[in-house]
Amino acid sequence: MADTLLCRRNLAFELYEMHNAEALCERPRFAEHNRETFDAALGTAHSIARDLFAPHNRKGDEHEPQYVNGAAELIPEVAPALTAFIEAGFLNATRDFEVGGMQLPNLLSQACFAHFQSANIASSSYAMLTMGASNLIEAFGSAEQQQRFLTPMIEGRFFGTMALTEPHAGSSLSDIRTKAEPAADGSYRIKGNKIFISGGDQPISENIVHMVLAKLPDAPAGVKGISLFIVPKFLVNDDGSLGARNDVALAGLFHKMGWRGTTSTALNFGDNDNCVGYLVGKPHHGLAYMFQMMNEARIGVGMGATMLGYAGYLYSLDYARNRPQGRHPDGKNPSSAQVSIVEHADVRRMLLTQKAYVEGAFDLGLLGARLFDDSLTLPTEDERQQALELLDLLTPIIKSWPSEFCLKANELAIQILGGHGYTREYPVEQYYRDNRLNPIHEGTHGIQSLDLLGRKVSMNGGAALKALLKQIHSTCAQAAEMPELNGLRTPLEQLVNRLQTVTLALLGDLIAGKVNQGLANSALYLKAFGHAVVGWRWLAQAVVAQQALNTAQGDDVAFYQGKLQAARYFLTWEVPSCQHELALLEARDDTCLAMQDAWF
Amino acid sequence: MADTLLCRRNLAFELYEMHNAEALCERPRFAEHNRETFDAALGTAHSIARDLFAPHNRKGDEHEPQYVNGAAELIPEVAPALTAFIEAGFLNATRDFEVGGMQLPNLLSQACFAHFQSANIASSSYAMLTMGASNLIEAFGSAEQQQRFLTPMIEGRFFGTMALTEPHAGSSLSDIRTKAEPAADGSYRIKGNKIFISGGDQPISENIVHMVLAKLPDAPAGVKGISLFIVPKFLVNDDGSLGARNDVALAGLFHKMGWRGTTSTALNFGDNDNCVGYLVGKPHHGLAYMFQMMNEARIGVGMGATMLGYAGYLYSLDYARNRPQGRHPDGKNPSSAQVSIVEHADVRRMLLTQKAYVEGAFDLGLLGARLFDDSLTLPTEDERQQALELLDLLTPIIKSWPSEFCLKANELAIQILGGHGYTREYPVEQYYRDNRLNPIHEGTHGIQSLDLLGRKVSMNGGAALKALLKQIHSTCAQAAEMPELNGLRTPLEQLVNRLQTVTLALLGDLIAGKVNQGLANSALYLKAFGHAVVGWRWLAQAVVAQQALNTAQGDDVAFYQGKLQAARYFLTWEVPSCQHELALLEARDDTCLAMQDAWF
Repeated sequence: MADTLLCRRNLAFELYEMHNAEALCERPRFAEHNRETFDAALGTAHSIARDLFAPHNRKGDEHEPQYVNGAAELIPEVAPALTAFIEAGFLNATRDFEVGGMQLPNLLSQACFAHFQSANIASSSYAMLTMGASNLIEAFGSAEQQQRFLTPMIEGRFFGTMALTEPHAGSSLSDIRTKAEPAADGSYRIKGNKIFISGGDQPISENIVHMVLAKLPDAPAGVKGISLFIVPKFLVNDDGSLGARNDVALAGLFHKMGWRGTTSTALNFGDNDNCVGYLVGKPHHGLAYMFQMMNEARIGVGMGATMLGYAGYLYSLDYARNRPQGRHPDGKNPSSAQVSIVEHADVRRMLLTQKAYVEGAFDLGLLGARLFDDSLTLPTEDERQQALELLDLLTPIIKSWPSEFCLKANELAIQILGGHGYTREYPVEQYYRDNRLNPIHEGTHGIQSLDLLGRKVSMNGGAALKALLKQIHSTCAQAAEMPELNGLRTPLEQLVNRLQTVTLALLGDLIAGKVNQGLANSALYLKAFGHAVVGWRWLAQAVVAQQALNTAQGDDVAFYQGKLQAARYFLTWEVPSCQHELALLEARDDTCLAMQDAWF
Repeated sequence: MADTLLCRRNLAFELYEMHNAEALCERPRFAEHNRETFDAALGTAHSIARDLFAPHNRKGDEHEPQYVNGAAELIPEVAPALTAFIEAGFLNATRDFEVGGMQLPNLLSQACFAHFQSANIASSSYAMLTMGASNLIEAFGSAEQQQRFLTPMIEGRFFGTMALTEPHAGSSLSDIRTKAEPAADGSYRIKGNKIFISGGDQPISENIVHMVLAKLPDAPAGVKGISLFIVPKFLVNDDGSLGARNDVALAGLFHKMGWRGTTSTALNFGDNDNCVGYLVGKPHHGLAYMFQMMNEARIGVGMGATMLGYAGYLYSLDYARNRPQGRHPDGKNPSSAQVSIVEHADVRRMLLTQKAYVEGAFDLGLLGARLFDDSLTLPTEDERQQALELLDLLTPIIKSWPSEFCLKANELAIQILGGHGYTREYPVEQYYRDNRLNPIHEGTHGIQSLDLLGRKVSMNGGAALKALLKQIHSTCAQAAEMPELNGLRTPLEQLVNRLQTVTLALLGDLIAGKVNQGLANSALYLKAFGHAVVGWRWLAQAVVAQQALNTAQGDDVAFYQGKLQAARYFLTWEVPSCQHELALLEARDDTCLAMQDAWF
């Protein structure tokens, strides 16, 4: 069986040919690094993912967490896998050397983490949640909070969660009802119920640090009245030792279609009116803090979706190469040997589609990580700000596009395996079930489309959109000088130019107060915008591949040919399809908006 | 909770307004029937499905069949549900009165069966398999075989299976290796291994009649060397009593992603060289027999996919009406009450898309059933032949279109329920998992596309295609006379006209011997052809709805408005998107065909 975590040749292409990881080493923060240290980290990630995460991926699905005596029990393989992950430094891959981190670029950290997501998305989630929660405390917590909670999280002794959703408030966070009352000692008493809290209980870490959104008594209505609290499972004494159990109860577990290895919990805070919480930062700023951390989390979700797609693609490719079935349409002599199904045009279509989706998404996610690095380490404030704005603009795409299209890739992987693909004796059905979560959590598809059209494209006078368009046109200009790429550029330019016109028209609607109409078809906008961005990424990959092909040797020739063919697929089979969405947007089609409840 | 089996108003619309079920009663075969007898059968189906099939749908999923001592064990609820189904006459709904049947039109039989598919696709499958197997024996078995095997199947004492697939031969049936050696007594000894045999073992029926494809010693290579055999689990004595256990062993069960309540088995025939089989019909004609029964089976698969989509649509609609979340984009006062999510434009889009898919597919499946009736009961041979040819042409669409688009509907139902939709506490995730089988079994999507383009559109000089186009143009002409339907007809005409041109061009390629090229993009052709057919069905529904709207009263007004809006959705949001597929077909785009194995 081939290695199906990811394609290592493509990883090198992405890091060193597309995103120029080595150039990051010229920046002071990464001066200790070079390609060797990067590759060493990647190699370690690969080994641990292969040896400790992949082997229990199916078992974690079949033996989902159990609720026993008020606590969640997991299969025993999860803890040692996470221990190895932590000991190898991946929990703090981007943190400073001085706190025990590897001080790696986010680009490398995401690339390392991708191995774990591909091997076992459920077990890797405990780490991702802890990274998200600890980043919040690092960015906004007091020195005292950092010492008490962040330090043991960095050490991997405490894990973290993000506790946002309530039974009646999911996408609409402004409606949360969890309360926080000030106590005499400066802490708060939390009372409320949260659901869908991933990692809300587990037997692995000494303690769990819940990052809880709640409302203070004087909170204004809506999103500007939400505050952020640290609510530990166990209180922590001044000397760092664990104190009493806090009034946080595991009310139950949700039983999911996939991603089963990660506990999804209902948590009750303050059933006994004694749940201690600590305010992070300023009152009423909780949602803003959460959103400042969202870029990284949404890159993580997009990469998770990508890696599930990637694993399915590589598995179905290996299967297609080794499964004999049928003959070519023009060679139907029944006495001849069967051909491998990779020989069939329609199977090639399904493989090429997967390749285009997962490698396009992989490039996009790493671009996001690179922009994140740029937003932190470029020399000037202006440059950093521009990188951050571009990342802000792309974030809804980075999150949603892989969630939609790498799920489609998983659907195709099942189809290639046929009846076998539908059985749990093969891994691809689990990838499909796992991946179905991604269009839902961390902001649904609908929320992403409203974020993109209602907020991101117009922010700062559309500066980020202009910067994006400039980069796309620059790539098109490069492609224009390469006759071999003839035909690839035009569909992208046609899409992007029309998208620009449509964007202005829709923003005009919004400015004119036609908000419901302007946003009604935002899902179509998200699709077209996403395909424009991924189309750009494929053209950029084609430019690099074509340049490299001129001097390539050995296996690299086929690798670059594959890149060019996948780019051709995406730009001729996928990108032009979005003209249809743009036509509907141009026409302000109101079919869905005008539909009445009673008519269903 | 609303009734989520199907919409009874829409069922009446389909049967009596679209497909004119009452007119069938003018034909001699159905002369005993009228709308009252039809509705009585539908009512009984609804009650049994609701009371005996739906309640154990989740349990059957959670407690899948177990392999115990060489046999499959099921949850106890399946047997009484099937007993009620049989006692109510649904196993023989279309059979003659004189053998105990209801002599119902296939149109009504499919409509009745749809209730069971919606309520519990897995438990209903045992009945569907038995119907398929018994129909084969009825059509091609000898009188003696019919008495020995068919009669107890009609009585519901014996169930049946279709045993085609082998480990190395799925889509490529010509490569099966199961052997049949003539024995002295005129029977045969069967030896071989079959996999994915649904219902291959179960504890419900007294006996199981496997319809097995195998090769005789003198068989020519390929599909023309396949014969059909009856292979019972228990031999049957001359007096009808059960004899010895035949040499058929349950080798194991497959564990599927969904559809878990139906056993999927590996069967070994002749491990002890003593497996008795009986040749059905003539030697080497087995595959032809199987395919003559395929229309009905493929309508059944398409209807199964449709009903899973339908159940998810109705459930998510009910949820959307009762789930408050967020506010309109232009009314963001956070102190105002939350609105039901059905108020959000993007949720309406997801509901309207589901409605368009499932009601379009439902109409299409019933059209297939109506054509099947016509092929049997129209007065003249010519008329019957024309109906059969049109059904033959449409069969790959009837099977594959719902399998693809009602699965998408299930994906949207999950999305509407958000995090809840992803949990097994709600039913929609199971519909999604169950439905994922449909693009695979009874001929994969790829096989259907080759059947359509490589065989069906050109059969009999393209007569069926011409007949279809004539009907589509006739519907367009009706729509042209209704100003209210302005704008609906044009996208369909544009698609159909271009599809016709593309079809001729592709058939030209095939005739010219460019078989690999001509068939390479058959998946695109299947999509465009399917959307043309369903677009036609939606225009036909719009014509009927618009006519009825002029005199409609009460709730009917909203019902017909809903039909018109769903038609508008399908014809403006879906149909025009296929121009992209047609452009690729016109260009003979060879991106997938030219992709090389080494480039992946």
